[in-house]
Amino acid sequence: MPNKIQPRVPRGMRDILPQQMILRQYVIGEIERVFQRFGFEPLATPSLELRETMMGKYGEDAEKLIYDAGHLEGKEELSLRYDLTVPLTRVVAMYPELVKPFKRYQIAPVWRAERPQKGRYREFYQCDADIVGSKSMLADAEIVTMIYAVLNALGFKSFVIRINNRKILTGIGEYSGVPVEMLGGLYRSIDKLDKIGIDGVRAEMAKSEIPAPVVDKMMQLVALPPNSFNEMREMLGAMPIAMEGLKELEELQEFLAQAQLPITNYQFDFSMVRGLEYYTGPIFETVVTEPKIGSLTGGGRYDNLIGLFSNQAVPATGTSFGIERIIDVMQELEMYPKTIGKTLTQALVTVFDRERAGASIRAANQLRAAGINAELALDAESLGKQLKYAAAKAIPFVIIIGPDENAAGKATLRDMNSGEQVIVGQDELAEVLTRKS
Amino acid sequence: MPNKIQPRVPRGMRDILPQQMILRQYVIGEIERVFQRFGFEPLATPSLELRETMMGKYGEDAEKLIYDAGHLEGKEELSLRYDLTVPLTRVVAMYPELVKPFKRYQIAPVWRAERPQKGRYREFYQCDADIVGSKSMLADAEIVTMIYAVLNALGFKSFVIRINNRKILTGIGEYSGVPVEMLGGLYRSIDKLDKIGIDGVRAEMAKSEIPAPVVDKMMQLVALPPNSFNEMREMLGAMPIAMEGLKELEELQEFLAQAQLPITNYQFDFSMVRGLEYYTGPIFETVVTEPKIGSLTGGGRYDNLIGLFSNQAVPATGTSFGIERIIDVMQELEMYPKTIGKTLTQALVTVFDRERAGASIRAANQLRAAGINAELALDAESLGKQLKYAAAKAIPFVIIIGPDENAAGKATLRDMNSGEQVIVGQDELAEVLTRKS
Repeated sequence: MPNKIQPRVPRGMRDILPQQMILRQYVIGEIERVFQRFGFEPLATPSLELRETMMGKYGEDAEKLIYDAGHLEGKEELSLRYDLTVPLTRVVAMYPELVKPFKRYQIAPVWRAERPQKGRYREFYQCDADIVGSKSMLADAEIVTMIYAVLNALGFKSFVIRINNRKILTGIGEYSGVPVEMLGGLYRSIDKLDKIGIDGVRAEMAKSEIPAPVVDKMMQLVALPPNSFNEMREMLGAMPIAMEGLKELEELQEFLAQAQLPITNYQFDFSMVRGLEYYTGPIFETVVTEPKIGSLTGGGRYDNLIGLFSNQAVPATGTSFGIERIIDVMQELEMYPKTIGKTLTQALVTVFDRERAGASIRAANQLRAAGINAELALDAESLGKQLKYAAAKAIPFVIIIGPDENAAGKATLRDMNSGEQVIVGQDELAEVLTRKS
Repeated sequence: MPNKIQPRVPRGMRDILPQQMILRQYVIGEIERVFQRFGFEPLATPSLELRETMMGKYGEDAEKLIYDAGHLEGKEELSLRYDLTVPLTRVVAMYPELVKPFKRYQIAPVWRAERPQKGRYREFYQCDADIVGSKSMLADAEIVTMIYAVLNALGFKSFVIRINNRKILTGIGEYSGVPVEMLGGLYRSIDKLDKIGIDGVRAEMAKSEIPAPVVDKMMQLVALPPNSFNEMREMLGAMPIAMEGLKELEELQEFLAQAQLPITNYQFDFSMVRGLEYYTGPIFETVVTEPKIGSLTGGGRYDNLIGLFSNQAVPATGTSFGIERIIDVMQELEMYPKTIGKTLTQALVTVFDRERAGASIRAANQLRAAGINAELALDAESLGKQLKYAAAKAIPFVIIIGPDENAAGKATLRDMNSGEQVIVGQDELAEVLTRKS
C-alpha cells in the first residue's frame, strides 16, 4: 500500500456532487425528452477515437487541445474525442446500413486541454442532435423548431435563434471584392459585430489591409437589420451563390411560420457567422437577450464532412446545446422548478433502537415499493442526531417509530419544513406521504 | 483536408447504435430508479484521475491495464479511471463536509486495456452504489436488499445473492494452519470451487505445496452447505476473528429476514471469496441459477480504503452491478418489456407534397406538444418510400395528409402492424394515438 496522498482532481476537471448532479440530471432529462419528441434517438460512441479519425477536421489551433491516450501494450494511436460531430460522421460512414434520414442525439463528455477558467472545464458535456441524409430545408426547420422547443421546455423566454447561411456570407464576400483567402479573417471580424460595434469591425478590417471601399460595400450589407430579405436580394442579385442561400432561407422561413414558431424567437441575421469551417448552408445560434448571457446553441448544415470518410457525399444538419452554460445560467437565474430540491429523497425512516429496527426496515421497504424514495437511518443513534441528519440533507419528511407507536402499529410522520407531526398507521404511511408530496 | 480514411473504432471499443441504446437506457433507467428509491444520489467524477490517485490500489496485474492520457502542454500524469470505487474514496477524502452516511451511485464508463473478447470491452460501464460512513450491518443489509430490488425490477427470478465475510475466510485460514502469505492464493483456489469442484481445489492446493492435513481441515469448512452457521461456530469457536465475522453475518441475516427478502434469493456461503484485496467484512455476489450465466453483482465492505487518502478511517460498503453482462443477458433471454421496441418514435407524419407540407408540420408539432414522439418526413418523396422508411424503422403508426383529407381538415392514421387505416380529424390525432399507444 502506498503512502498517504493528497486527494486532488486533474487541473481543469471537477467532481459533480449530488446536489449539483440532481440539477444536471433534470436539465439533461428535459432536453432528452424533447429530442425524443422530435424523433431523435440515442447514439453512443467510444470516448477514445483513433487519432487519424480526428486529425484534419478541427483546424490547427483546435488540434493542439486534443488529449492523447494509450496503454502499455497499445499499438494504436488514440485520442480522447474533441467533439461529437466527427464521431457521428465516422459512424455514418462505417454503417452504410443505417436507415436515412438518420436522426441521432448524443449527450456525452468531450475533452479539450484549454486554459482552465471560471465555468470552462477540460472535460465537459456536449449535447448534439443531428439529421443525416436529407438536403431538405425541412430538416433545418426541424432543427430550429427543436431548439425552440428545448429552450421553451427549460423555461427560457427572452431568446432569439439567429439564422444565416454560409452561402450568403460567401456571396457578400464576393460582392464586396474580398479576396477568397481573406474571407476567413473577415468572417471572424463580422462575428464580433455584437461585441465591438460597426466601427470596431471597420477598424479591425482596416488593420487587415482590406481596402476601405471594400469594407464600406460589405458593411452596407452586414449592417442591415434582421430579416432584410428584399434588400439582400436587390444588392446580391448578381451573385448566384448568395441567391441560392437566400432561397434556402426563404424556404426555411416559410416552414418556421408553418410550425408557428413565435416570430420574436427567431430572426434572419446576415452578420451571424459561427466559427467552424465545415458549415456549408444554413447556420443557427441562439442568444438569450434578457439577461445578456451569450449564445446557448450553435449549429448548421455541413454537407461535406461525412464525405471525408465515405465515397458519397452525405448531407447533414444539426445543433449543439451549450449544456454546461445552460446549467450554470439556470442555476444563477433560479430557473429550476420548485420540485427540484437538494435531494431526491422524500423521507428518512429513523431507527429508534435495535429492538425497533425491524419495524423501521419494514416501513422503509413499504414506502419504496409504493414508489417513494426513502432512506433508512443506519445507526440507532439518538433521535436528535437522526433529525439533524435529515435537516442537513434537506429531506422533507421524517418517520419515527418509537416503542409506544410500534406497539400500536403506528408511526409519527414529521414534516421537516413546518415541524408539524401526525400519527398514522404504519401501513398508511405510503398513502399519506404520496398525498403530501 | 486529409486523405479519405477508413472509418474504424479502437480495438476493443464499440459504437452503440440507437436500437441497442434504447435497451441500455431502459436498463440503466430501471436501476437508477431503484437506487433513488433506496436514498442513493448521483455523483460524477472526472474520467481522468491523477495517476498517483490510482496507483497502488488495484494490484500489479490490474495496474498494467490502466490507460494513460495527456496533452501537448500537460504537466500532470493522468490516467483514465479504472473503476468507480477509488474515485469515490478520493471524493470522500476531498470533501470532509459531505454529510455521512454518504450514499451515492455512479453509472459511468471505465477503461481497462484487457485482451478484447466476446462481450468484454476496453471501455465499459460500471454501475456502483455505496454507503460511506456507517459500520452498521444495517448498511450491508440495505445493500443486499437493494441488489434484490434491482434484479427483481429487471425481471430476474432465479438468482441467489451469496454472502460471506472476509473475517470468516481469515479465520478458516488460521484454523487450518495456512501460512498468512499463502492466504491470497488459497482464496483464489477456493473461489473456483463452483467451476472445478472439491477435487479440483484440492489438486490446486497440493500444487501450491499446502500440506494435505491443512487442505483437509480447510475443505471440511469450505465444503459445508450454505447457511451452516452452527457448524462454523462449533469449529471456529477459538478463532476470535471468525467469531466476529459470524456475528456480523447473523445480524445481517436478521435484518434481511426483517426486510422480508425471499429466502430463496440469498444464502450465506462460506466458500465465496470475491477477488479484490480491499474487502474487510461482509462480501456479496449474485449468481443467476437458471440459466447459468455467472455473477451479475459483486461487492462488500471495505473499511480501510478511504484511509489511504484521509487521516481518519471511514467505513464503507457497497456493490457493483455488472451492467454490460446484465444488458447482454436480458437481450439473449428477451427479458425486455414489450413496450421497449426498436424505436422510441410512435408516429411518422408523412409529407404528401410541397403544398401540403404545412399541414404535416402542424400535425407533427401538435403530436409532440401532446407528449407523443413524432417524426416528420423530410423529403416529399412518394408515399410508398415514406411508408417503407417507417417500416424499416419499425415506427408503429403513420399519418398521411393528402389533398382531399387536408381540404376536409382530416388525416389518415395507419397502423403499420395491422395495416388498418382510419380517418380522423387533424386536431384529434394526438388523442386517438394516445389511446392506441
